[in-house]
Amino acid sequence: MTDGPRCARCFPQVMEKLRNSTGCTGIVCPLQYSGTMQNSTISSREHRAVGFVLVHAGAGYHSESKAKEYKHVCKRACQKAVDRLRAGAMALEAVTAALTELEDSPFTNAGTGSNLNLSGDIECDASIMDGKSLEYGAVGALSGIKNPVLVARRLLSEAQKGKLSAGRIPPCFLVGTGAQQWALTHGIPPCPSEKMATKFSLSAYKRNKRKMELAEKIETEHHFLKRQRTSSGTVSEIVEPISSSLDTVGAIVVDQEGNVAAAVSSGGLAMKHPGRVGQAAHYGCGCWAENAHDARTYATAVSTSGCGEHLIRTMLARECSTAVQAEDAHQALLEAMQNKFIGSRFLASEDGVLGGVIVLRCCKCGDDQSSENLQALLEFLWSHTTESMCVGYMSAHDSKAKTHISRLPPGAVAGQSLAIEGGVCRLGATND
Amino acid sequence: MTDGPRCARCFPQVMEKLRNSTGCTGIVCPLQYSGTMQNSTISSREHRAVGFVLVHAGAGYHSESKAKEYKHVCKRACQKAVDRLRAGAMALEAVTAALTELEDSPFTNAGTGSNLNLSGDIECDASIMDGKSLEYGAVGALSGIKNPVLVARRLLSEAQKGKLSAGRIPPCFLVGTGAQQWALTHGIPPCPSEKMATKFSLSAYKRNKRKMELAEKIETEHHFLKRQRTSSGTVSEIVEPISSSLDTVGAIVVDQEGNVAAAVSSGGLAMKHPGRVGQAAHYGCGCWAENAHDARTYATAVSTSGCGEHLIRTMLARECSTAVQAEDAHQALLEAMQNKFIGSRFLASEDGVLGGVIVLRCCKCGDDQSSENLQALLEFLWSHTTESMCVGYMSAHDSKAKTHISRLPPGAVAGQSLAIEGGVCRLGATND
Repeated sequence: MTDGPRCARCFPQVMEKLRNSTGCTGIVCPLQYSGTMQNSTISSREHRAVGFVLVHAGAGYHSESKAKEYKHVCKRACQKAVDRLRAGAMALEAVTAALTELEDSPFTNAGTGSNLNLSGDIECDASIMDGKSLEYGAVGALSGIKNPVLVARRLLSEAQKGKLSAGRIPPCFLVGTGAQQWALTHGIPPCPSEKMATKFSLSAYKRNKRKMELAEKIETEHHFLKRQRTSSGTVSEIVEPISSSLDTVGAIVVDQEGNVAAAVSSGGLAMKHPGRVGQAAHYGCGCWAENAHDARTYATAVSTSGCGEHLIRTMLARECSTAVQAEDAHQALLEAMQNKFIGSRFLASEDGVLGGVIVLRCCKCGDDQSSENLQALLEFLWSHTTESMCVGYMSAHDSKAKTHISRLPPGAVAGQSLAIEGGVCRLGATND
Repeated sequence: MTDGPRCARCFPQVMEKLRNSTGCTGIVCPLQYSGTMQNSTISSREHRAVGFVLVHAGAGYHSESKAKEYKHVCKRACQKAVDRLRAGAMALEAVTAALTELEDSPFTNAGTGSNLNLSGDIECDASIMDGKSLEYGAVGALSGIKNPVLVARRLLSEAQKGKLSAGRIPPCFLVGTGAQQWALTHGIPPCPSEKMATKFSLSAYKRNKRKMELAEKIETEHHFLKRQRTSSGTVSEIVEPISSSLDTVGAIVVDQEGNVAAAVSSGGLAMKHPGRVGQAAHYGCGCWAENAHDARTYATAVSTSGCGEHLIRTMLARECSTAVQAEDAHQALLEAMQNKFIGSRFLASEDGVLGGVIVLRCCKCGDDQSSENLQALLEFLWSHTTESMCVGYMSAHDSKAKTHISRLPPGAVAGQSLAIEGGVCRLGATND
């Protein structure tokens, strides 16, 4: 084990966690207690098969009745990523595989099964970031493409090829019909919108449309009555607000070389205005990945979920990435969620701040830094201010993924409280 | 004069500049020397008419032959903003007035006269931020609207009204046809694209199209010849690259109450792919405005110009805003431009990093903090890595705006060197 600044800083703390954890270790969160430290200590004789994936199927509300479905899709997404890692793929490829699986599930609000907008159409946002090259690709308000993340991924890889003809700079962010055209000319097949809508999304649209019409009718009547309170109560008492199905999906991965990658994909808010773009297509807001750039820094990867407007204005993905460079990642993430999200000056006028993040940080340690003998110490965390958040995680050494629906503790108010959980994991092909 | 932490920190430095400046004071920039400190010390018996505006007509290349036109539009934009400030308007309204004027000029790459995209259409990006409420509005790839900034401005003010019917969260960022529809339903009139194209933009499009076709033909032949160098030289030797008309426009304003606002508007890169969105519609990248949030911080406002992809990936507007909270604003901006832009890890693969910023920071000082007796000390700066940048500035006490085309020093390489200039100004209705 080296005595370099990176190891000296992280080893005592992380190793302490690894030593002490025989199961779950409670973590007190000063704002709301809802912490468990899940542990996954892994060592193996197998060489080259290292890597880790953490996915989320959204921060929002996951009913008990659908918990099984959400967990199942997280499990499959983890497996897809790990399959790629085991085949020697890099983080970027593995994270794309996980996202494609998450998008294809009819239960998630991304790709197939996305929320419908005001006009009854599906418009998706997605982005991806490579921690090694720091390249980034994003699409916004994209219709008619089954897997928006594949377009973002292709934008990233096309940009890596350098300038276009006549010295033009390749785009990193495309929206709307232009994005769709670009995808088609780059060999990504079209998908009719009706194939991406599901029975559930169509019935939710009809239900939401009725709610909106009723709310608007009552608001008009209120206005007509010069804002006098009607005998039947206020609008919000009469019409239940449209439940924000915030279950954007995302994944973060570290590969056998210690490279990280992050991605996110979303159908956006239910009944959003056409053309509305959320955090999933916003640089620094939807996802973030940055390899360690010197011996003093960690590789970090983040993916967010929740109300796009809140996540944009707090640039939550990048904020969390920066935060977890601190010594105690858990405490740093907790403080970032409290001070830079719930308590953010940028959201002072909001009555509830809704979002969630998955975060990993990783440092390579060991006498021999070659990939064959790499030991990576990994801390992974999730935190949310929404009722619940569904996550799954798996290392390349695991036989199957672990999944979990994290919930705010009883009595905690969504939008004002948070839950934070996570674990530590030793990755590496050691000979012990 | 108070001895509060804000004054103690900034007064000695700024007052020294105000005292010593009888004309221009050179500032050495370690990377490239191109510094002048322009000074504008203002005091007046007139009450309430305080405020300041700094505009840019882009960081790019401004030929001597067109310098007069660029300066003229900057002058008019400053005047429009100051007219609003003198009428008691807040920063947000004044910055919108400046932007509208800049967009309406056929010489700038924003609104009328915008660059045409690959399909020969105009698609604009714009955003605006209010330092008081920290609200933000943005539009991307918007066609058929004469003043994109007015749509961004309207998004901001609609969001300030709170939730939409049935509890839906109002959007802060709209793109494409959805953005256009939203504008029309909010009373912003349509404008046929042919009215926004100019003789100059149409002829530039034809010229660029020929260049692209020629470049692509040669590239195909090169490829056919298995990448053998032809006797007639490489593609870039034969076909001059499409000149990036980067002259995005922007403005930053401080009003009589010390509120700041910032805005930016752009037609984007010439021959961009339809749907491409640049920094002007990207939170934290195109503009930034933040009032002082405690006695230890300055109010700051920033607007950027240049290659959108470079400005997005470095989040330059927010980065500069954060930087100039340091004691020495000039040094801090210089270091930010060197380390967080030209030398950014996020642009390591780029052979030249093109952009420019205008920045102001302001602190209220004085025994009496009421707006009638407000004294505001203001530092304003611009910096660019492009050949040139055209700026204009004016205080509400000035009879006319000052304009300037800042250029890199002879021999400096655009994309690798920078120029930085600026001034200090005392704003306030004192009785001296």
